[in-house]
Amino acid sequence: MRIEGEHTQSIWYDPERDTVKIVDQTRLPHDLMLLELASLQDACRAISSMQVRGAPLVGVTAAYGVYLGLREEAAELEVIVDQLAATRPTAVNLSWALNRCQQTLQEYSGDERVLKALELAQILEKEDVAVCEGIGEQGASLLQALWERKKEGQDRLNVLTHCNAGSLATVDWGTALAVIYKAAERGIPVHVWVDETRPRNQGAAITCWELAQQGIPHTLIVDNAGGHLMQHGEVDAVLVGADRTTARGDVCNKIGTYLKALAARDNDIPFYVAFPLSSFDLSLQDGLKEIPIEERDAGEVLQVTGLTDAGARATVSVAPANTRASNYGFDVTPARLVSALITEVGVCEARPEAIAALVGKR
Amino acid sequence: MRIEGEHTQSIWYDPERDTVKIVDQTRLPHDLMLLELASLQDACRAISSMQVRGAPLVGVTAAYGVYLGLREEAAELEVIVDQLAATRPTAVNLSWALNRCQQTLQEYSGDERVLKALELAQILEKEDVAVCEGIGEQGASLLQALWERKKEGQDRLNVLTHCNAGSLATVDWGTALAVIYKAAERGIPVHVWVDETRPRNQGAAITCWELAQQGIPHTLIVDNAGGHLMQHGEVDAVLVGADRTTARGDVCNKIGTYLKALAARDNDIPFYVAFPLSSFDLSLQDGLKEIPIEERDAGEVLQVTGLTDAGARATVSVAPANTRASNYGFDVTPARLVSALITEVGVCEARPEAIAALVGKR
Repeated sequence: MRIEGEHTQSIWYDPERDTVKIVDQTRLPHDLMLLELASLQDACRAISSMQVRGAPLVGVTAAYGVYLGLREEAAELEVIVDQLAATRPTAVNLSWALNRCQQTLQEYSGDERVLKALELAQILEKEDVAVCEGIGEQGASLLQALWERKKEGQDRLNVLTHCNAGSLATVDWGTALAVIYKAAERGIPVHVWVDETRPRNQGAAITCWELAQQGIPHTLIVDNAGGHLMQHGEVDAVLVGADRTTARGDVCNKIGTYLKALAARDNDIPFYVAFPLSSFDLSLQDGLKEIPIEERDAGEVLQVTGLTDAGARATVSVAPANTRASNYGFDVTPARLVSALITEVGVCEARPEAIAALVGKR
Repeated sequence: MRIEGEHTQSIWYDPERDTVKIVDQTRLPHDLMLLELASLQDACRAISSMQVRGAPLVGVTAAYGVYLGLREEAAELEVIVDQLAATRPTAVNLSWALNRCQQTLQEYSGDERVLKALELAQILEKEDVAVCEGIGEQGASLLQALWERKKEGQDRLNVLTHCNAGSLATVDWGTALAVIYKAAERGIPVHVWVDETRPRNQGAAITCWELAQQGIPHTLIVDNAGGHLMQHGEVDAVLVGADRTTARGDVCNKIGTYLKALAARDNDIPFYVAFPLSSFDLSLQDGLKEIPIEERDAGEVLQVTGLTDAGARATVSVAPANTRASNYGFDVTPARLVSALITEVGVCEARPEAIAALVGKR
């Protein structure tokens, strides 16, 4: 990804300081601040407070967290893994990355374990970049086919996205937005409708910022607006990421995704979900019954933080004092509403056999 | 409606000052401010800036606006009506009220016309209260039937609402919320899920405030959350208002209503729409094609106004500077997704014949 024209990642290891650097996503879009993670606690806080967010990036951050923890106490692998695993419950990449760390590292001890932990985190980081680029290429072919069919008389291909499944949700490239970037590289004139994505406004704050940095045309809308745009032919495809996808193709993603999938189906618009194979949880079938949905602080609903005209950060309450609020972070879109799953090894329908065949390619 | 325990309306005529008083809804929930409308311009501004909003209340305010305008220049009936009609395009009650004023008042002139205009506005005001109370009673019977079927093992009847179709959208009682109030009077333990209703947050700011004032249990949610709650059995009915309903039952209401109707259908939950007969526009059939959808200022999407912890009003931007935003105010829910229409004269299915029969009762 480019930030102010320079190539940057969302997370990287700083060998000089022996620490991990992240972009603090809670400060975007108004401040571009880098944070240094120097301890297990730093890594846990970065994940739970959503300074880093997005299933793939959470996984890589956790791997670095294992390194930072082991550096403090190389014998405490299990304690460290448990602590990181407890930071957020819904995305499967977190436990996927931690399982991989645990399996690899339990065969080592002492300084060697610490060294291997760093190596592994760096491997996961590099893999994530390659995986996301692969997702982008696979998905771009879908958008290209759509554009070939639609382009008569149209000046742009309109893609609606929800939340941020971009470079900032991964190490680089993103999942859903990788598809956009690769499509743009192929000369497809993509325009993105960006759902603001209440309550944390990742769409308004992060996706708009990221798309602007990459020069991709986009328009911000409230989460309520997508149905109306679809009814009026203003959306050619819906494209989102996923935090966990089951063996039968149920997709868990940011709260509100399900509503957009319903509207896409009702208006005969393709609904694509882009994610790495590591976001599959093949141990689960029924996403609605089996995926734990994170419930976050009501304050995220009751308050909004942004920049005043004077340039100061401020947090405001919209509801009356003492209003009770509920704040589920994710919902599950049933497989029947999903047109295609886009992964780094290929595209498939959201059906058990198709998924099994795709995963078999790994 | 009760405000701080006192019975109050959203609009009333002050005979001592010969002006019209309104609750300034742009200041809620943090400040309860009354505004005095003393001229046609005051009335136009109150409607276009949404100091008053909600289809029925907009209609009554327009009728008072005709009086205030005629008081300045009794000969200018048509000019006054045109000016008021231009304030907002979507709600049909505005043109309904203005047509009624025009038809009645064109038969008078001079001081007599002015006097009749005031009388007519007061009649419309009183009619609206009676109509809304009727809507409440009609709809409460639906909720009562639902509660009789559901109450085994449940401690509350969960109703989800979008925007504010309450006392503050009418002179008193409301439309969708009148149903809630009348159900509560009958002893049904109603709990309301309140969609915050971006971009203007009428749910968070106005509905939560109004429900708290009336002592109705409620929980604020983001607009993205309703689908998830419905999937998990947490919603027994969806109940919204309408700004315009066509002869075949297509319903135009606040942007985002359509998405909730889709989710209600997908989860086999009744989707009720409550409104006065005056919100029918029987000259239209296809709501999607024929109802003009108001496009409002992008600033409503880009900025949020609320109260800081220090108690100051502040407006903050969440998106990056120079982000483009789109802001459609309403969407259309096709009749096929509507379980029942609730009016002051009865409840009917959203079908042309049923609607014609119901309207025939007027």
